[in-house]
Amino acid sequence: MLGIGRATLARRREKVREELGRRGLRALVAFGPAQVRYLSDFAFIATERPMALILTEEKAWLFVPRLEVEHAERSAWVDEVLAYPEYPDREHPMLHLARFLRDRGLGEGRLGVDTDGYAGGYGYAGPRLSEVLPEASIERAGDIVARLSQVKSPEEIELIRESVRWGHLAHRYLQEAIRPGRSETEVSLEATQKATLAMIRTVGELLPPGSGPAFAGFRGQVGKGSALPHAVTTHAVIRAGDVLVTGASANVGGYGSELERTLVVGPPTPEQERFFRLMVEAQEIAFARIRPGVACAKVDAEVRRFFREQGLEEYWRHHTGHGLGAGMHEAPFLDVGDGTVIEPGMVFSLEPGIYVPGFAGFRHSDTILVTESGAEWLTYYPRDLPSLTVDV
Amino acid sequence: MLGIGRATLARRREKVREELGRRGLRALVAFGPAQVRYLSDFAFIATERPMALILTEEKAWLFVPRLEVEHAERSAWVDEVLAYPEYPDREHPMLHLARFLRDRGLGEGRLGVDTDGYAGGYGYAGPRLSEVLPEASIERAGDIVARLSQVKSPEEIELIRESVRWGHLAHRYLQEAIRPGRSETEVSLEATQKATLAMIRTVGELLPPGSGPAFAGFRGQVGKGSALPHAVTTHAVIRAGDVLVTGASANVGGYGSELERTLVVGPPTPEQERFFRLMVEAQEIAFARIRPGVACAKVDAEVRRFFREQGLEEYWRHHTGHGLGAGMHEAPFLDVGDGTVIEPGMVFSLEPGIYVPGFAGFRHSDTILVTESGAEWLTYYPRDLPSLTVDV
Repeated sequence: MLGIGRATLARRREKVREELGRRGLRALVAFGPAQVRYLSDFAFIATERPMALILTEEKAWLFVPRLEVEHAERSAWVDEVLAYPEYPDREHPMLHLARFLRDRGLGEGRLGVDTDGYAGGYGYAGPRLSEVLPEASIERAGDIVARLSQVKSPEEIELIRESVRWGHLAHRYLQEAIRPGRSETEVSLEATQKATLAMIRTVGELLPPGSGPAFAGFRGQVGKGSALPHAVTTHAVIRAGDVLVTGASANVGGYGSELERTLVVGPPTPEQERFFRLMVEAQEIAFARIRPGVACAKVDAEVRRFFREQGLEEYWRHHTGHGLGAGMHEAPFLDVGDGTVIEPGMVFSLEPGIYVPGFAGFRHSDTILVTESGAEWLTYYPRDLPSLTVDV
Repeated sequence: MLGIGRATLARRREKVREELGRRGLRALVAFGPAQVRYLSDFAFIATERPMALILTEEKAWLFVPRLEVEHAERSAWVDEVLAYPEYPDREHPMLHLARFLRDRGLGEGRLGVDTDGYAGGYGYAGPRLSEVLPEASIERAGDIVARLSQVKSPEEIELIRESVRWGHLAHRYLQEAIRPGRSETEVSLEATQKATLAMIRTVGELLPPGSGPAFAGFRGQVGKGSALPHAVTTHAVIRAGDVLVTGASANVGGYGSELERTLVVGPPTPEQERFFRLMVEAQEIAFARIRPGVACAKVDAEVRRFFREQGLEEYWRHHTGHGLGAGMHEAPFLDVGDGTVIEPGMVFSLEPGIYVPGFAGFRHSDTILVTESGAEWLTYYPRDLPSLTVDV
């Protein structure tokens, strides 16, 4: 079975507890779904109903709505599941939480939180934890898990490698299905369906709950639309001569990867070829700079310097990459403003892009793992133009 | 073309401005992606990069990262697009925002916000607006748009009706594709692919950017797994005798609907039939109570009373329903704790559920529109057991 084992979870909690001790905090109360899952391995659907993971030196509790009790008792690794009836209900869930904490001697003193109350969405509204627990001192401590999760454990890297494989297959199916006259939607759905079924049939028995789909698509980056880095789909029809920017991944136990490619439909023009070559060069500059001890900012600064030297500044739109794993985008960022020092076990997207308004966009995104001496490409889909040219 | 017209947007802004005036607020600064879209009609992908919609008596500005400039200028209805380079960059985006506000005379006085700074996710970290604009008085005003968006305009209702149609088709394909021995994933992907292609081929030209997919699935609620209201997929194989709880919808211009059905694979047992009948009765009780002037709490209280009277309390897991539209779950909630008075134009899910551990779960969810005198079922998929029994 793939997944996060008890030993890894125990190690995560151990490290959080050490840091709570150093800061003199009596507990961590984590509301963010990613932090809850990181400390409990519980895969759940976040809604208007607050959930929280409460970690002390001795115990780990999971605070859930009634509807998640059986699910949490079966799937979450905690000492006890604490339940409230519903949101908003006659008594607000945050008042239940305050009582639970008081009953366990955590009603006063210094408590760490990732956010002061549930950040919600889904129509949620409610008081801060500091409002319902005025005797306690509520302090920001979301950085503990955020920092810890930047360096991936061997199990996490296995999940990301597994994601890479099925994103790769989805992208193969995508590329094979491209033909002028087909819509991006048709091609994406076909690739996603085939890759997800292949994934389930191949490793379905090994996958943690909630895994899937394996998907690939274009998200509107078709033809001139490719010049918008974050286009949204218009179900564009693919034409000969188009530049396409793709994206593929697979959810494996909550972990993901990034594989994006620039494709050309039919023989590339000299201008398409030129921008493609510059984009690949920018990505290689970034890859060559990544190694332990280097600041994230340095990698992005080198890429931006390349843009300046090549007169590409007007086509620059975004930083070189971001951390990834359980979040789609995570800190640290390969960005001139992020001074984080790169460490072995960090996983990044590498995706400098060139966007020429009214013409086309050019971006590959690869997932790389920082090793002891440099970096390893986890994605292994071809990056060269001949391999990425669609015959018409 | 389906979508939100300029007149509707202007009306929304007019109402927000009136309320800002009543409260003596000089501007609304909205960071939440749903609020930004509600006031600008800009469909975008939220990431680590903050965005904000700034509305004053005179103007509407959209604050975006460099990578969204061309996209926003083409698609958002605002007076001006304000851009910062990147997140985190050498100067944090919130410092750019503070300067933009000061330059426009909004650096002091009372400003309303939905959240005090960007709530983020995606690895974002940053100061509150009140920290970068200490001379201003920052006040919570997220309730203005939240309250306004509870009552849907005719255009919004059209988008929801359109969503209902394609969710319906996806569910038809889903039901037709169920056979013992097939996995939930196989059936879901087939239905989703067919329905989305039919939707695009039928109304693709009429849809706002970013629409789709039309999808249907089970999300792990297969056989005994149906007893977990928020199961996650395990790619379960469907067997004769299983109870299945489904879900179907379609994204139409950012709006959605809910269609969920309880299906039985093969002839239902008397026990399956009994719980099915009770669940449908609970839903009808809810529907009969919905009309303008009634409190949301009242509807849920009647349903909970029915659970008590029928000895179903141990199988109760969640409230009767929630508002829906541009959010998947929205306030107000059909919940004993929500005193909101129901108004014409509100749209709700109706979905009381019965969950029998180790046996099965029973839940239909329908989308209903509050009318002048009562309510209208927007979803029209059959709700009776014979129609929802899969022949084997």
